[in-house]
Amino acid sequence: MNYSFVENILGRLMIAYAGFMGIPFLVALIWQEGSILSFSLSIIVTLVAGVILVTHGQKEGRMGVREGFVIVAGAWLLTSLAGALPYVFSGAVPTYLDGLFETVSGLTTTGASVIDNVEILPKSILLWRSLTHWLGGMGIIVLFIVFLPNMTGAVHLFNAEVPGPISERVLPRIRDNALKLWQIYLGLTVVQIILLILVGMNLFDAVNHSFATMATGGFSTKNTSIAYYDNLGIELIIIVFMIIAGGNFGLYFQAWRSGISKVFKDLEFQFYLLIIAVSTLLITLSLWWTMGQGGGTSLRQALFQVVSIITTTGYASADFDQWPSVAKIILFSLMFIGGSAGSTSGGIKVFRVIVLFKLAWTELKRAIHPKAVINVRFTNKTVDPVVLNTVSIFFFLFIAIFAVATLLLAATGLEPFVAMSAAVTTLGNVGPGFGVIGPTTTFSSINPFGESVLIFCMLLGRLELFTLIVLIQPEFWRSRKGW
Amino acid sequence: MNYSFVENILGRLMIAYAGFMGIPFLVALIWQEGSILSFSLSIIVTLVAGVILVTHGQKEGRMGVREGFVIVAGAWLLTSLAGALPYVFSGAVPTYLDGLFETVSGLTTTGASVIDNVEILPKSILLWRSLTHWLGGMGIIVLFIVFLPNMTGAVHLFNAEVPGPISERVLPRIRDNALKLWQIYLGLTVVQIILLILVGMNLFDAVNHSFATMATGGFSTKNTSIAYYDNLGIELIIIVFMIIAGGNFGLYFQAWRSGISKVFKDLEFQFYLLIIAVSTLLITLSLWWTMGQGGGTSLRQALFQVVSIITTTGYASADFDQWPSVAKIILFSLMFIGGSAGSTSGGIKVFRVIVLFKLAWTELKRAIHPKAVINVRFTNKTVDPVVLNTVSIFFFLFIAIFAVATLLLAATGLEPFVAMSAAVTTLGNVGPGFGVIGPTTTFSSINPFGESVLIFCMLLGRLELFTLIVLIQPEFWRSRKGW
Repeated sequence: MNYSFVENILGRLMIAYAGFMGIPFLVALIWQEGSILSFSLSIIVTLVAGVILVTHGQKEGRMGVREGFVIVAGAWLLTSLAGALPYVFSGAVPTYLDGLFETVSGLTTTGASVIDNVEILPKSILLWRSLTHWLGGMGIIVLFIVFLPNMTGAVHLFNAEVPGPISERVLPRIRDNALKLWQIYLGLTVVQIILLILVGMNLFDAVNHSFATMATGGFSTKNTSIAYYDNLGIELIIIVFMIIAGGNFGLYFQAWRSGISKVFKDLEFQFYLLIIAVSTLLITLSLWWTMGQGGGTSLRQALFQVVSIITTTGYASADFDQWPSVAKIILFSLMFIGGSAGSTSGGIKVFRVIVLFKLAWTELKRAIHPKAVINVRFTNKTVDPVVLNTVSIFFFLFIAIFAVATLLLAATGLEPFVAMSAAVTTLGNVGPGFGVIGPTTTFSSINPFGESVLIFCMLLGRLELFTLIVLIQPEFWRSRKGW
Repeated sequence: MNYSFVENILGRLMIAYAGFMGIPFLVALIWQEGSILSFSLSIIVTLVAGVILVTHGQKEGRMGVREGFVIVAGAWLLTSLAGALPYVFSGAVPTYLDGLFETVSGLTTTGASVIDNVEILPKSILLWRSLTHWLGGMGIIVLFIVFLPNMTGAVHLFNAEVPGPISERVLPRIRDNALKLWQIYLGLTVVQIILLILVGMNLFDAVNHSFATMATGGFSTKNTSIAYYDNLGIELIIIVFMIIAGGNFGLYFQAWRSGISKVFKDLEFQFYLLIIAVSTLLITLSLWWTMGQGGGTSLRQALFQVVSIITTTGYASADFDQWPSVAKIILFSLMFIGGSAGSTSGGIKVFRVIVLFKLAWTELKRAIHPKAVINVRFTNKTVDPVVLNTVSIFFFLFIAIFAVATLLLAATGLEPFVAMSAAVTTLGNVGPGFGVIGPTTTFSSINPFGESVLIFCMLLGRLELFTLIVLIQPEFWRSRKGW
């Protein structure tokens, strides 16, 4: 392991990160908020840490698989630690752990909050919350690759932060592609801001909600989230952009070149829309029948919540914790599934779910034809058996980590279903859960031990498990020639 | 598909099954119970059905993979349908569906009951409940193979009813081995009966509880299950025999020849004991601290419930629905894991859980050495990649079916965690769940739709998913030469 080189890269990243803190700092300056000092201090601390790392490390080095993993894990750790400073310095949260929770929730685009009343926060702090979403959504490292001079081995960074099928498609010209992804991301965000202003939202709220929507984050500037506006136009725009954000950006990249039809011909995108349609239908019926709500209101509430949960955004336009059991179970299941691979969503991902069903079907065929060799095909290509294996294992690891996290959370006294929802909503980077962490409440009632578990779950989920778990292998740290 | 041959085999099975109904019939005769008539009628119906099938079918035929699946599925269906008759005729249950639920719960060794007061039932009916456990425990088909004249292709039957690693070991001389397994099973049952009598249980109760223990079933002759006796001796004996029943009978078969040490050197058995020890420890601490119970009582209750749940027996010596959340989550997780492969337990099985962890570890190694070929080893042998794949898919299917069943049960109005516990307790053939289907209540509050879902779950779980699911493939039923 080339620690010295790793330090240098991480140092440069921290300096860039301090630059992003300048944005809320400017907002604080413009609105003359008391948080000016908090941001100044945070920027200084982050800059100093960055400069020390840069000067202590060495600029030239070889980037291998291991360095890639350590840099990505280190980058997420350091940006989380530093990102908590503005919250702590400004007094927005009572403890550093709370600040860390809020930052990790922001960067991982989870959107779970420990702040009960966000409406009293300075605008600069609100913008910092949304900005952490936006930076984390497309990936801190992916953004960094854009700004880096051409670096060999950037592919290892990309792979560690953006696992899944998208990486294969965009690998060849890594920096160009990272740039294009960020351009699409930025473009869509700007369009959403304009549309939200057109239907009556003010500029500040529109920027914050667009950052949070495109990142599938979920932080709002209002305590009651999107329910505050009670505006069909706003809800529809947010629904459409959540659906877009939960789709594969690699696909939009292809559509940019060869037309929009590419998107709708994609099996994963079709399946993703199908899950949304079926879930919305079932929940609409359930609300209509068992709660005596009108069909229109039921449909509107069902669609918004289904899209918000499957894309792992976590906005709420209704208190789904009061919904019938069957509606809760559907939303709970969607938290596991998540959006498309290559999107800003969390969860297991629709791509993997499709592969698992195809694998199961293959296995059933094998039961009758034990000797047959049966391939799994995906949009006309045979999927590499190694990928299939990785998908199965990912599924097992997701469920196993979910089980352990649930156990730890239950030990803090949370009821079984509440503990499960807390585990999956953080692992899947969704946001709200059920019961005491439902859509109308926050995570402020969780004790410090529980908060730590949830912070770890959010990071594990965002980095798709493997990137952090590989670090626990003793073998990983054993120095060896050639690595 | 050779339907005619299938009919003949199933007919012979029904005739043998009618013979087993003779046992409770004799009991009814001895105690002069009103259920004499019910059993007479049931025997006649079953016999007539058997004779019709035998005469309509043809005796000679070729047993292929497909015939194997259809015979096993048909055998479980017919014995379930016929087994419900004594309950219905005697008035022990109000509807035929209830009778079917009770029989499927018996044969699959689940032990979930819809009868609120079992203490008013005739002895013959109680014995029939326990006998269905005992017959289903080692396998209806396995027992049948013992009585069959040497038949080519019995291996296909064996494989469809007893999936998992045990089948590989005992395949060669299928009939001899089926006989040996039943001898061990019978021998252990007799030993348990004697021991229970020695610590004060009466003969009738000892027989019933031993049938239910060795089959990891869980039906009791008392409404409050084992808590009724409040006898440490009885609890200890049942704990030991539940642990034995949840172990691999193929292993006991080897131990019979080469010594008991074989059992304790087996990785799966070691891991199985480890899970029991750790779970018991955690629950003991949880009961001790949060409920203010004494350490001794906590340990005694924790050990009994842990063993009862992981072995999927489902006896209760305490109302674990009142336990702290963390204890509930541990028991809930154990319902998924289940006992050893080749045991009478249900669930995913410890063997598969170990394989999944080994696969995950392999995947982590692959993340650093992408080109490396890494094998999964199990007790010094490399596991065939096809088996590994099957294990992963089994895990996915188990969770997917669990999710669908939970959704359907939630639609009947069950609360989320209760619906989940109902789904896993039936899929894993455990017995009790939480809430309205907790250890102190029965399944009588579940509506007919919910009952049907649960019946299907019990059968799916007992036949380890694949045996029933393969039948849904249209291809399976397409007639073709050579099959």
